[in-house]
Amino acid sequence: MDIGEMFTDALPWLKKYRDAIIVIKVGGHAMVDSEARNGIIKDIVTLRYMGMKPVIVHGGGPEIDAMMKKLGKTPSFVSGLRVTDDETMDIVRMVLVGKVNTDLVALISRHGGKGIGLKGIDGNLLLAKKKGPERITVEGKDVDVDYGWVGETEKIDPDILFTMLEKGFIPVISPIGYDRDGRALNINADTAAGDIAASLKAVSLLSLTDVDGILMDPNDKASLLSHLNIMDCYDLIKKGVISKGMIPKVLSSITVLNAGIESVRIINGNVKHAVLLELLTEKGIGTQIVKE
Amino acid sequence: MDIGEMFTDALPWLKKYRDAIIVIKVGGHAMVDSEARNGIIKDIVTLRYMGMKPVIVHGGGPEIDAMMKKLGKTPSFVSGLRVTDDETMDIVRMVLVGKVNTDLVALISRHGGKGIGLKGIDGNLLLAKKKGPERITVEGKDVDVDYGWVGETEKIDPDILFTMLEKGFIPVISPIGYDRDGRALNINADTAAGDIAASLKAVSLLSLTDVDGILMDPNDKASLLSHLNIMDCYDLIKKGVISKGMIPKVLSSITVLNAGIESVRIINGNVKHAVLLELLTEKGIGTQIVKE
Amino acid sequence: MDIGEMFTDALPWLKKYRDAIIVIKVGGHAMVDSEARNGIIKDIVTLRYMGMKPVIVHGGGPEIDAMMKKLGKTPSFVSGLRVTDDETMDIVRMVLVGKVNTDLVALISRHGGKGIGLKGIDGNLLLAKKKGPERITVEGKDVDVDYGWVGETEKIDPDILFTMLEKGFIPVISPIGYDRDGRALNINADTAAGDIAASLKAVSLLSLTDVDGILMDPNDKASLLSHLNIMDCYDLIKKGVISKGMIPKVLSSITVLNAGIESVRIINGNVKHAVLLELLTEKGIGTQIVKE
Amino acid sequence: MDIGEMFTDALPWLKKYRDAIIVIKVGGHAMVDSEARNGIIKDIVTLRYMGMKPVIVHGGGPEIDAMMKKLGKTPSFVSGLRVTDDETMDIVRMVLVGKVNTDLVALISRHGGKGIGLKGIDGNLLLAKKKGPERITVEGKDVDVDYGWVGETEKIDPDILFTMLEKGFIPVISPIGYDRDGRALNINADTAAGDIAASLKAVSLLSLTDVDGILMDPNDKASLLSHLNIMDCYDLIKKGVISKGMIPKVLSSITVLNAGIESVRIINGNVKHAVLLELLTEKGIGTQIVKE
Amino acid sequence: MDIGEMFTDALPWLKKYRDAIIVIKVGGHAMVDSEARNGIIKDIVTLRYMGMKPVIVHGGGPEIDAMMKKLGKTPSFVSGLRVTDDETMDIVRMVLVGKVNTDLVALISRHGGKGIGLKGIDGNLLLAKKKGPERITVEGKDVDVDYGWVGETEKIDPDILFTMLEKGFIPVISPIGYDRDGRALNINADTAAGDIAASLKAVSLLSLTDVDGILMDPNDKASLLSHLNIMDCYDLIKKGVISKGMIPKVLSSITVLNAGIESVRIINGNVKHAVLLELLTEKGIGTQIVKE
Amino acid sequence: MDIGEMFTDALPWLKKYRDAIIVIKVGGHAMVDSEARNGIIKDIVTLRYMGMKPVIVHGGGPEIDAMMKKLGKTPSFVSGLRVTDDETMDIVRMVLVGKVNTDLVALISRHGGKGIGLKGIDGNLLLAKKKGPERITVEGKDVDVDYGWVGETEKIDPDILFTMLEKGFIPVISPIGYDRDGRALNINADTAAGDIAASLKAVSLLSLTDVDGILMDPNDKASLLSHLNIMDCYDLIKKGVISKGMIPKVLSSITVLNAGIESVRIINGNVKHAVLLELLTEKGIGTQIVKE
Repeated sequence: MDIGEMFTDALPWLKKYRDAIIVIKVGGHAMVDSEARNGIIKDIVTLRYMGMKPVIVHGGGPEIDAMMKKLGKTPSFVSGLRVTDDETMDIVRMVLVGKVNTDLVALISRHGGKGIGLKGIDGNLLLAKKKGPERITVEGKDVDVDYGWVGETEKIDPDILFTMLEKGFIPVISPIGYDRDGRALNINADTAAGDIAASLKAVSLLSLTDVDGILMDPNDKASLLSHLNIMDCYDLIKKGVISKGMIPKVLSSITVLNAGIESVRIINGNVKHAVLLELLTEKGIGTQIVKE
Repeated sequence: MDIGEMFTDALPWLKKYRDAIIVIKVGGHAMVDSEARNGIIKDIVTLRYMGMKPVIVHGGGPEIDAMMKKLGKTPSFVSGLRVTDDETMDIVRMVLVGKVNTDLVALISRHGGKGIGLKGIDGNLLLAKKKGPERITVEGKDVDVDYGWVGETEKIDPDILFTMLEKGFIPVISPIGYDRDGRALNINADTAAGDIAASLKAVSLLSLTDVDGILMDPNDKASLLSHLNIMDCYDLIKKGVISKGMIPKVLSSITVLNAGIESVRIINGNVKHAVLLELLTEKGIGTQIVKE
Repeated sequence: MDIGEMFTDALPWLKKYRDAIIVIKVGGHAMVDSEARNGIIKDIVTLRYMGMKPVIVHGGGPEIDAMMKKLGKTPSFVSGLRVTDDETMDIVRMVLVGKVNTDLVALISRHGGKGIGLKGIDGNLLLAKKKGPERITVEGKDVDVDYGWVGETEKIDPDILFTMLEKGFIPVISPIGYDRDGRALNINADTAAGDIAASLKAVSLLSLTDVDGILMDPNDKASLLSHLNIMDCYDLIKKGVISKGMIPKVLSSITVLNAGIESVRIINGNVKHAVLLELLTEKGIGTQIVKE
Repeated sequence: MDIGEMFTDALPWLKKYRDAIIVIKVGGHAMVDSEARNGIIKDIVTLRYMGMKPVIVHGGGPEIDAMMKKLGKTPSFVSGLRVTDDETMDIVRMVLVGKVNTDLVALISRHGGKGIGLKGIDGNLLLAKKKGPERITVEGKDVDVDYGWVGETEKIDPDILFTMLEKGFIPVISPIGYDRDGRALNINADTAAGDIAASLKAVSLLSLTDVDGILMDPNDKASLLSHLNIMDCYDLIKKGVISKGMIPKVLSSITVLNAGIESVRIINGNVKHAVLLELLTEKGIGTQIVKE
Repeated sequence: MDIGEMFTDALPWLKKYRDAIIVIKVGGHAMVDSEARNGIIKDIVTLRYMGMKPVIVHGGGPEIDAMMKKLGKTPSFVSGLRVTDDETMDIVRMVLVGKVNTDLVALISRHGGKGIGLKGIDGNLLLAKKKGPERITVEGKDVDVDYGWVGETEKIDPDILFTMLEKGFIPVISPIGYDRDGRALNINADTAAGDIAASLKAVSLLSLTDVDGILMDPNDKASLLSHLNIMDCYDLIKKGVISKGMIPKVLSSITVLNAGIESVRIINGNVKHAVLLELLTEKGIGTQIVKE
Repeated sequence: MDIGEMFTDALPWLKKYRDAIIVIKVGGHAMVDSEARNGIIKDIVTLRYMGMKPVIVHGGGPEIDAMMKKLGKTPSFVSGLRVTDDETMDIVRMVLVGKVNTDLVALISRHGGKGIGLKGIDGNLLLAKKKGPERITVEGKDVDVDYGWVGETEKIDPDILFTMLEKGFIPVISPIGYDRDGRALNINADTAAGDIAASLKAVSLLSLTDVDGILMDPNDKASLLSHLNIMDCYDLIKKGVISKGMIPKVLSSITVLNAGIESVRIINGNVKHAVLLELLTEKGIGTQIVKE
């Protein structure tokens, strides 16, 4: 295909996403592979220069684990949440804010964009409250768990994001919230991305994962389901097509859609130019979920 | 090459031309071939949606000739200028403003853009003065010529263009000026485009012609000169490489460059996506002339 | 009367119409008599400099007829609408946009104002849809008619007008609409003026005609009815005082009043300074219709 | 002449003075004759509604004298300046600010305008310094005089005037300045008007007096000199045509012109509609002085 | 206490009143004691520089009485209202606007602020209507009274106040209203302050009086009631704790609170720094009345 | 002294610093003592609410040392600069950006302000270049040293700071710069604070240290020099009064003063309310250095 053709083919999407806010959750393998990370950021800077307003929310589990080990601590999880004691909370902050976030902003700068690193306390962006302690059922037994400094979003104040977007910046957000006493809380990156997208009335939330999207047959890439609505999702969960780790991702997508976001897209961050292909081509590359 | 790659390859140009004003002179064969015209306008709408600010200046000689013939008049030219009596001036206005310009604006609309048709009198955009009568030398003989209502730019007031660009419009300009008494004057489209580009401090002026640019050997397309500066141009004129109809085009380009425009590009409007390929690829497709 | 007295007598109207949008439909004899046309435009430029915001909508039937004849075509009408084939549509566009409109803008410039010529496609101002083909009753017989490229307003986007008014321009609009496929449609100028006035929430619509307004006795100019409301109009139609060609004019005025315009004024464009006298004197010169 | 004609005849002046700041010094007989005062204010409100920006500076000598007498004090003057002791200063403030100024603002309101009364202390508009005590020559003898609280302009801060003009108000200014210690000083109204006009870069200063302007022969109204430049003025002073009380008025006009004001106009405030006739007719009614 | 402590202790109030409009009624003894007046104005300028937006409304009874006597007139009151004939109205205007108001603005300037003196006619701020004549009961007898030019607020247009506050000015308002015919009316300063506070949606109205607030035991300063709500007030009136002159003050406070003001504060203007202590300390110094 | 008095005594400084940008370098003991840190931040939030625009630049040496030790690394310094290898650079970033900076922003939030944490890469705020390797003289011997990732400011782009200040935020900046390839560089906090103050045209730079300022006799607190100019400083260095660690601090202050900052103040961060006392009292508490 010729390059001119490609641009004019993209015209409907350029129109649709002009000045649109798009939240991109960056996580998984792409975060540890520097080439993949570089490609994703280059795509995002390109989006910005084509007139869109991307907002990045990042994770960083593997890097946190590595630092904990260096400092002689053993990571521990309950129901997929990292149990976060005082020391762990400091490590989470240092790794996510001081290292991962800062590296992403530096990459944006290298590709000619203007990034700004943010966490929940900046401009009182993400007010959170501690989750638990609570009694849950693990493997059939009732147990009391205390996740420590794990939190849930209480309120988003998107004002600082609108200011930065208006000025041409690409915000990069670490999923660390703060409670009313100014204490840091560790928030799940997927949830934070969804909450932020909802508060910004973003047009779309892109979730970069390590899988191609939702497959009818997990062993057949060709069985990718490109376009689902909420009803479809519930059906597929019932039928077991959507299962395991994908269930919470899909359920949280449904929450976001109900909050007014037009579409959630689950794509494979390891595919080269996944972000651009998903947003600027007719077919896209992953699974797009819409309300109806 | 893969689509995503093409997009990110365009990043340097997207950055360079972000919010940049680019004047595009549309003329020649492309104006009579509806498919070519459609392609050019689609390219230009795409530019707009990627954040540039294109301004179109159009010609329309063949359509004027056709209407003159229908009305029983014979077109007549002196030194390349159309001798323009009262009736011809009315025909020029009707064809350029009422038909050609309006068709281009309609095409912009069809591709999802917002165009606005303008001529010199709108917002006092292009004040002109009558050219001649004067004594010139034709084929060795001195003759007195009166071009009639042919004019030259006296002053451009770009205010209305800045207003329209600010509001997201694509201006389409017919090269008809008006003198201080409100009389219409027929202006050469290339000259008008140059004058307008200079008054807008445009980044670049693209001139769509029927040739590939400046060729070292007119019979060998591969001998295209992609990048020239003003000194090169004078050299090539002296050597006869730039000759005939290309001389005034190049000389007027030099005037525009001296007025502060960064580059003038002579490209073949009949090449598919000529505009996008010239602006968004490293190599371009025609001849780019810069000051130094 | 002394000139100072006149200005202070006008104070109530200067106050009332300060910054007010006033749509002026210019048509009839005044359009072919250059002195009358010049006087009307001078009045309108004076309004602008006294702080009002006039918008001009013009017709041009006689000039279209003349050009059609020159090109060997015979004008044809059904129920007062010009049957508009492809060739006629081109002629309508060329005459209205290329000649009549451009002449009015040039006159504005000559009197020191800044005009801008517009038609329906500019800034997607007037989206229209084709009227018919339909079965109507003509002289007692049912006939199938196809008006060709005759259209009706589907939607007005007044954005470009507000922009131009804000910047001090006087917009001059040719009543040519465009459908969703970018095809030109011939619209009745009175209807277009009414639709535009409604979309702008204009304070008043002035319709310049060849008659003095609505007369109780058509043979007695002194029987002019200066002030009517909608109920009066229906009564006068029933009584036959309002008859023939005046009926559609009055019915369309009622539509405009119901859309929120404060007053419609039917005045004689052949009276010197008709526009100023109507707007800036207690008595006015024509018939003013208000809602209640 | 017909009304419409009068309006369009005013077009050149409406254009010239559109958005122009015009300072009007109101004094003399007109200030004590309530009908004349009413007429002047009505003219000024009309100017505002036609798009100009009038600023009023008023005097009030006769009313001050009257109040002084009521309170048992005898007005006293040296070289045309009112000797101003503490008690007199209080009377001056009370009469000018509390009565004369307030009456003018109320008249503006009655004619539908929005006035605002100001004196030198408001917004630190007019910083002044005490004049004298000094040794002057009176009737051939050197005497030491102390004018008391008489002041001269030290600095104008026109910011508050620009704010009020921008918001559509007509400022009415009492010529009372304040020194750096917040003490009130009595300033000559003509001088204050000139200083304010200069600081506002007004287009014109109108001085309403009780005479028709500068006459070649003081007994022949027909000998009015309509248009003078600075050189003419010096000549006429030398020749004795400009004499007595008119000399300081003309000299201060020259100062104002040198500060960048386009014209100073000396007109008879007792002529009906003097302000409008002077500004909106070709001929004017008084003497206009320009730089060259 | 150390100065740093004091500032940080004030932090909650600095936050609460940041950009808040606070109307301050200045009257009583403080108006005739120049040192007290100076202190109050210094406090108010300090408020402005700490980010609040104070608006001053002043009285001036004693100074009016003094001037009336000087001019041989005897002040006369009915039900606490000054009977205001033509001459008295002129004196009221001259004293309040020309002297008291102007002195306050000069004090603001001396402390480095920018004041602006206003009365009801400026910018049509306070439209009033004449009160009475009416039949009232005085000491058990029905009598017909005509207060003369005494008025009541009909409508406040706070536009000019918002403009001045936005620009950093401290408005100083004389309680003189104007009726629809431009006639001056004498308004009670407390009522005017309340009406103005309500129209500005002020956060608080401070009333500077000669008493410490509302005391449970009038002979015991320690019995001050610091915080009351509307119900408390009605109770205290019933019980006789609030009595005599304080009753109308409290009733008018209730009206203001019902119009949406957060609090009314009755404080002793003779206490040094009463305004700052009331607004910037936890305890305050007078009685604060709130809705509930 | 009474509270109100203290407030009005601060009036000259409230005026002087209204809307003024003040850069505050926070370092030393105050950074490790949580109560002192809390007090400093409360002072700074108070400044903000009184209308100033504070900007914080922080150090964090002790916390970096602690983390290095935890990770088994030994801090090493050459000429007072931390030798920064890859791993150290990561630790510096994590500790400063992820912990120290984030804690300060959380404290701002707790006191009711809105903070935002920044480092050099955000909005391309601080472009730096690597210092050395270079040959220096240490204890009389020439040695080649490589400081590793230690940098010097190349260019400040204060745009993001102006944006944040305009929106009411308190920026908190970690002194980490980035070079043109997006690599992090460790910058001296004092130097960074000075460079940032200069780029912002700040009114003053406050340097919070562990000493009381410059003392004539180091053992006598009463010998504090409150006010010095640049000439004084050079004299005192010559005389040995300014010595050791204070020399570079004073020399860098001189650079900042020459860049247009009005004053540099060296104060003891361990004194309660040091910031407020220095800025809002006549005497201040430390040493203020001005140009002349």
